[in-house]
Amino acid sequence: MSQPDTPRSGPHVRIVGTGLIGASLGVDLSDRGFRVSLHDTSPTAAALARDVGAGALAAEVAEPPWLVVVAAPPDVTARVVAAELKEWDGAFVTDVASVKGVILTALQDAGSDVSRYAGSHPMAGRERSGAVAAQADLFDGRAWVIAPGPDASPAAVAAVRTVAEAVGAAVTVMAPAEHDAAVAAVSHVPQLAASLVAARLRDLQEEAVALCGQGIRDVTRIAASDPAMWTQVLAANAPAVRSVLTSVRRDLDAVIAALDELRAEGADGSAGAVGARAVLARTMAQGNAGQARIPGKHGAARTAYATVVVVVPDQPGALGRLLHDVGAAGVNLEDLQLEHGMGQPFGLAELAVLPAAVQPLTTALTSRGWPVHV
Amino acid sequence: MSQPDTPRSGPHVRIVGTGLIGASLGVDLSDRGFRVSLHDTSPTAAALARDVGAGALAAEVAEPPWLVVVAAPPDVTARVVAAELKEWDGAFVTDVASVKGVILTALQDAGSDVSRYAGSHPMAGRERSGAVAAQADLFDGRAWVIAPGPDASPAAVAAVRTVAEAVGAAVTVMAPAEHDAAVAAVSHVPQLAASLVAARLRDLQEEAVALCGQGIRDVTRIAASDPAMWTQVLAANAPAVRSVLTSVRRDLDAVIAALDELRAEGADGSAGAVGARAVLARTMAQGNAGQARIPGKHGAARTAYATVVVVVPDQPGALGRLLHDVGAAGVNLEDLQLEHGMGQPFGLAELAVLPAAVQPLTTALTSRGWPVHV
Repeated sequence: MSQPDTPRSGPHVRIVGTGLIGASLGVDLSDRGFRVSLHDTSPTAAALARDVGAGALAAEVAEPPWLVVVAAPPDVTARVVAAELKEWDGAFVTDVASVKGVILTALQDAGSDVSRYAGSHPMAGRERSGAVAAQADLFDGRAWVIAPGPDASPAAVAAVRTVAEAVGAAVTVMAPAEHDAAVAAVSHVPQLAASLVAARLRDLQEEAVALCGQGIRDVTRIAASDPAMWTQVLAANAPAVRSVLTSVRRDLDAVIAALDELRAEGADGSAGAVGARAVLARTMAQGNAGQARIPGKHGAARTAYATVVVVVPDQPGALGRLLHDVGAAGVNLEDLQLEHGMGQPFGLAELAVLPAAVQPLTTALTSRGWPVHV
Repeated sequence: MSQPDTPRSGPHVRIVGTGLIGASLGVDLSDRGFRVSLHDTSPTAAALARDVGAGALAAEVAEPPWLVVVAAPPDVTARVVAAELKEWDGAFVTDVASVKGVILTALQDAGSDVSRYAGSHPMAGRERSGAVAAQADLFDGRAWVIAPGPDASPAAVAAVRTVAEAVGAAVTVMAPAEHDAAVAAVSHVPQLAASLVAARLRDLQEEAVALCGQGIRDVTRIAASDPAMWTQVLAANAPAVRSVLTSVRRDLDAVIAALDELRAEGADGSAGAVGARAVLARTMAQGNAGQARIPGKHGAARTAYATVVVVVPDQPGALGRLLHDVGAAGVNLEDLQLEHGMGQPFGLAELAVLPAAVQPLTTALTSRGWPVHV
């Protein structure tokens, strides 16, 4: 039960679970001089991770770990963390599951030494999985939340921070309940909303589906995510997700009641229902206010960008030529959206730039023959 | 009440309402040899549209119109259409409002000659408004729904089709009720969902908002839309929107009930709630199925693209150099997503390409020094 010392060089990180997150972390830490050992319940998965450069197999490393990172599926994470805390009583342990409260509670219930445990959540991932999808820069520039429980030692938190910062992540420390409430609002409920909206398309006529524009494409993009993984995540964060969903339902009920009132108005021709319109306007305005809080690029305060729209032919290299010309104009592109029309051999590129860059950019692109709209 | 002939050349299109849609249509039709006259309740707005090349002021054109396009705000459209049908009894009339049933009903109730009216809905627009934002290619490649009522003459439908196809739109003909049900599902309900999700961010702590990733950014992008305009649209389509929202609420209630069951499970440690997990998995799977129906680029059947991820430094021209190199490799970019990490001077560019292009593209980019991940 003694607190392990933080090693000065080449610390040994044991990674348990060598899927996308575990293998990517192993590759990155190995590149940066950490000694990494790999364990997975599937020997094949562990060997694959070793082969992509994630570290050595655990059986080949005699030395006990300084830090154990459990990157197992969410529904077995608590059990694996408890076993690791018990097996390595001189090591710190963290995990990377996207819900933190249930794991800490399970460890407390199991009587684990939670002073050496600081749960964490790297906000990184891809639609793909497995060590074959590993990428060393997966965590670069991403948020990595450390969510220590009340009994976690400062040294346990520091160990996790050392690893997270080594791979380029931006560390935030939050209590587990705060973390779970935050991801319910910024991740889990948006995921459910995307799925519920996309589900409405199942029974539409083909000609109706053909009217889908960029709006619904954006709203439903993440509805393509893996049901099995998300079922685990939502189940693990049930109380916090339910709390946010309940407020969504309260607002939804108000919108439906307002539409009922307006529908009745349409039928009988009365000019009332001012209150119903106010409900709709307030719903939209509250959406404006919430959306405006989402941070801009690099997590910095939102900058008001201006948009320059350019017509781009659908040919190899056309977009490249455009952006080459943007670069030649000395303008830094803050964001780029592509819109594709139906049945036409071109798209619209919306270039987001600082307002001061609009005029020089427009002049430069126009002089090079691009059709530009500000 | 006689049906007007379709003119052979230079037909006169009268545009009533010279905001973004009316002015853009005027510029485009003028460029293509139509005679365009402009009317707006605001003489200043009409003069501005004339000055950007949208056509002549109505007072300057003696000849009666062949087709009247009413591009007024949705809440006055029916009244303006009725007045135009009455004033020009030899002209076809259409409108561009995004909800069709209420307008037809109002015209029928007013005793208008609906044989000369075929409502329509160009699926085009920008976040900006007014003639100053007009762009001649606004309709190029967009869907343009014509939604004739049961009494609309084929010649009225043909006139609207002539104009829509002249400006490059892809025409779809649907009954008004079908149109309204379709846009409720593919546009109005996604808009409300984005607003309801974004509204949850209003009261979050700053450190929680900082965890927003690309998922919620996409889901809530359109939550920035104009409340006043959307209140009109939602009110005009109240029955159809309510119908879709009711099915959303049914699914939402099932999810909340499932989370309740799982929350209780978490509290008492029982291992039940298999049914609750099945509800969550089914919700996600139905989202998968709906999302998969959204057409790909150019309205064509969805193609399975592969993704190549490249690390791009945050410098002027870096993205341009990358896409120049993509073009130099002879590869056509199907889509591009930029992801910005927090606090890091670079972003990740996700290049969507045909699967067969992944290997040559990866080889070409790697040889030019780009860090590539497939």
